Amino acid sequence: MITLKGSEVSAKIKEQVQELAGSLEGTIPRLAIVRVGERPDDLSYERGAVKKMRAFGLEVQSCVFPQDIANEEFKERFREINDDPQIHGILVLRPLPRQICEKTIEEMICPDKDVDGISPVNIAKVFSGDPSGFAPCTAEAVVEVLKANDIEMAGKRAVIVGRSMVVGKPLAMLLMKENATVTVCHTRTKDLSGTCREGEILVAAAGRAKMINSDHVGPGAIVIDVGINVDENGKLCGDVDFDSIQEKASMATPVPGGVGAVTTAVLAKHLAQAAGYKQGGEHVSG
Amino acid sequence: MITLKGSEVSAKIKEQVQELAGSLEGTIPRLAIVRVGERPDDLSYERGAVKKMRAFGLEVQSCVFPQDIANEEFKERFREINDDPQIHGILVLRPLPRQICEKTIEEMICPDKDVDGISPVNIAKVFSGDPSGFAPCTAEAVVEVLKANDIEMAGKRAVIVGRSMVVGKPLAMLLMKENATVTVCHTRTKDLSGTCREGEILVAAAGRAKMINSDHVGPGAIVIDVGINVDENGKLCGDVDFDSIQEKASMATPVPGGVGAVTTAVLAKHLAQAAGYKQGGEHVSG
Repeated sequence: MITLKGSEVSAKIKEQVQELAGSLEGTIPRLAIVRVGERPDDLSYERGAVKKMRAFGLEVQSCVFPQDIANEEFKERFREINDDPQIHGILVLRPLPRQICEKTIEEMICPDKDVDGISPVNIAKVFSGDPSGFAPCTAEAVVEVLKANDIEMAGKRAVIVGRSMVVGKPLAMLLMKENATVTVCHTRTKDLSGTCREGEILVAAAGRAKMINSDHVGPGAIVIDVGINVDENGKLCGDVDFDSIQEKASMATPVPGGVGAVTTAVLAKHLAQAAGYKQGGEHVSG
Repeated sequence: MITLKGSEVSAKIKEQVQELAGSLEGTIPRLAIVRVGERPDDLSYERGAVKKMRAFGLEVQSCVFPQDIANEEFKERFREINDDPQIHGILVLRPLPRQICEKTIEEMICPDKDVDGISPVNIAKVFSGDPSGFAPCTAEAVVEVLKANDIEMAGKRAVIVGRSMVVGKPLAMLLMKENATVTVCHTRTKDLSGTCREGEILVAAAGRAKMINSDHVGPGAIVIDVGINVDENGKLCGDVDFDSIQEKASMATPVPGGVGAVTTAVLAKHLAQAAGYKQGGEHVSG
């Protein structure tokens, strides 16, 4: 089985980002990461994103608010970030605390700065296959892994485990646009392993540690693991039991070292595109 | 094989519409049908919709524009309809002629009057499973046929042939919300008949006369035919070769007399909901 490394995909995306950034006449794209509170998951994702932006030559600032900030106060502060012409892209770490109306933020965020695709405008574009919209970075990262490794999607059976708005649903649209025949499985799917085995491309995005094993993998399948979980020993692991699929899959992404690194690279690409869009350039994502 | 008649489903929806309309304190919901030119398909759909609205006790008016109306002029006239407080719902017959920017109209239409779900706001809601959005009537009609006939969707394999924004994609979301495991096939699907046979529920929405036959139907499958085509003898027919599947399918909708009648009933339901929403009532579609 071939291990598909995220770092190699990320390096390819870095070239695209540098080309995009090079056409910006001196403007350096700047990302605002909006974080409320100190959730370990958020801090870990933020660290990765900050490191990646800097490695790609982009600017990034963290906008941190106390866990108990009032809804109105947060909205006001978010509006300032949203309106700031120095900020080209905004990443909101979610879920936000309960007192904050996340839906309002999704509707408020300027679609042109919405580099992680949470605005209804971008959601509708991804749904309709309009390439001028930003897809959620993780969903797009899966397609980038496949493309960077010259894996044909057209005509292939693709099975996605998970129907979230962050991965499963938008990824179904992106893979459909690439002409794959897509099936989406979820907690209510009856014969999960059998359905997964139909996939020539199998994407695990359920958020459950090592739930996908050799039973779920058809012979020669390509397995993309979107999960980021912690196993019983406190170690980072994916949704796929990587060791168990070695004899079945033809290729697979590891965790860590797989899709995660590509997700932040896609975030960087979206940021560079957002900065170019601001300058009146063509706005094409994906 | 049992024939699933649209008229019976429509009669059930009529009861819901009358209940909704009864709570409107005398307001009679009014639909505006916007038509540009005299395309036979549009005229035929319009006739059906007008007849249905009247049969359900709702009001309807046709707003007809010449085939060669200029984009700016049409936009202006559309704005008047959109802003008219006497109009609760708007159905735009599409495709519009080439000179008119359909995308602008989709973005202009007031989401609360958008009873056929073309606005990005409603598209995003359908995608995210938010029941306050209007889904395209034809997609919702498929779910209504299944519900009215007590056909369980949860855990079932559902296969949709066609990935349009009018049926295939939104229907995938609606069926996923009902906990079906959904596969979407299209022109680039390699083993179309084999993939279709996996469906316990098979929905034909490809727009090609009689392309689905007994080869595509698994034993006991429920077949819903969304197609409206004209066959070689000039007769109305669906995407399914109805005669050929009699021995294979357990139930199927005919054409005519199937989904079409339910689509206009859903349109009426959306109109009554839109009128209720206007009055400050709860806005729940589906």
